[in-house]
Amino acid sequence: MDDDKYHNEGAVRGHRARERREQILDAASVCFAREGFHGASIAQISKLSGMSPGHIYHFFENKEAIVSGIVQRMATRWLELLSPYPTDEDVVETMMRRARISAESRTQRDFAGLWLEVLAETARNPRMAAAVNEADQRVREALGGQVEFIRRMSGLEPTQNTDAIVEVVFALFEGLSNRMVINQAFDLDSVFEVLLVATRAAIES
Amino acid sequence: MDDDKYHNEGAVRGHRARERREQILDAASVCFAREGFHGASIAQISKLSGMSPGHIYHFFENKEAIVSGIVQRMATRWLELLSPYPTDEDVVETMMRRARISAESRTQRDFAGLWLEVLAETARNPRMAAAVNEADQRVREALGGQVEFIRRMSGLEPTQNTDAIVEVVFALFEGLSNRMVINQAFDLDSVFEVLLVATRAAIES
Repeated sequence: MDDDKYHNEGAVRGHRARERREQILDAASVCFAREGFHGASIAQISKLSGMSPGHIYHFFENKEAIVSGIVQRMATRWLELLSPYPTDEDVVETMMRRARISAESRTQRDFAGLWLEVLAETARNPRMAAAVNEADQRVREALGGQVEFIRRMSGLEPTQNTDAIVEVVFALFEGLSNRMVINQAFDLDSVFEVLLVATRAAIES
Repeated sequence: MDDDKYHNEGAVRGHRARERREQILDAASVCFAREGFHGASIAQISKLSGMSPGHIYHFFENKEAIVSGIVQRMATRWLELLSPYPTDEDVVETMMRRARISAESRTQRDFAGLWLEVLAETARNPRMAAAVNEADQRVREALGGQVEFIRRMSGLEPTQNTDAIVEVVFALFEGLSNRMVINQAFDLDSVFEVLLVATRAAIES
């Protein structure tokens, strides 16, 4: 009984801590997208999250650790989209639906702005690069598994090219964020069909 | 004779001014990639270019105008790669050679870092967005012309989809810069063949 009580209290504390962490990452995402990594301050994140700077530092050592947390959270989201396909669904339909969700996420203005800011910082900060590269490796492996699964389901021979296919598919979807920021008239609906053609061609190459 | 002399002096002055402008853009490119748009100062650009701040302001009103100059210069480079195909060359060979040059440029560390910094700033600065969008429009039109040319040469029917094809091809090549920053083991050589497959599938869709 007492054990249970302690266990529950621990669970509640763990749940609350996760909520606080999410709250900080949400506020920081907005601040980084708006002001840039260097422009955004812990003071601003504190104001927007409604949490004291001390409380924020309790969860994250510095701004870099917060960006790292944001990157982990994004990777978790991509990994969900790359989880094994439900066996009772049509493979092509599932692939198209997940491609659509991924394309929509990547062309949301808030996501694209934040992600490009993260990448700009990644390009000049070796510690950030290590964190991004490590998160990406897990996502790459998951997409590699999917590519092999889709090829098998399509009756294609195994390929030595899985890593290259993964890179090209990711380049396509990564590029959507850039295009959305570059071309003010970018419209996912009118682009999606050609996007699928290119994605399938890469997977089946 | 005198006319000629004045003309030549004017030409030399024009040439020198262009050189100075290029010198500023080169130095600023390094500073922006290294420090970010907000981190880089006119003082740093002055130091690296060996030109006084006053001299820099003579050519560019502010940092934003310098970024705009960098974007124009990139657009000029892409437009060269999208100029009409030489009539004495094989279309597919020319396309592959140019795709290779473009992919190599986009995966150069310096280019990728600078470009991602420009895009991160573009996402939050409406004046930058207008400049980038305008330069991109010219590049889009040029690629649209190429897509139609390649389709004609391949005996394909005209398509209503040229704009969508252009977006997807640009997304692919844009995404290479992101991938190069994200995946520390990114290797263009091992990826290039699949990249071409996806590009051709988009163009011929």
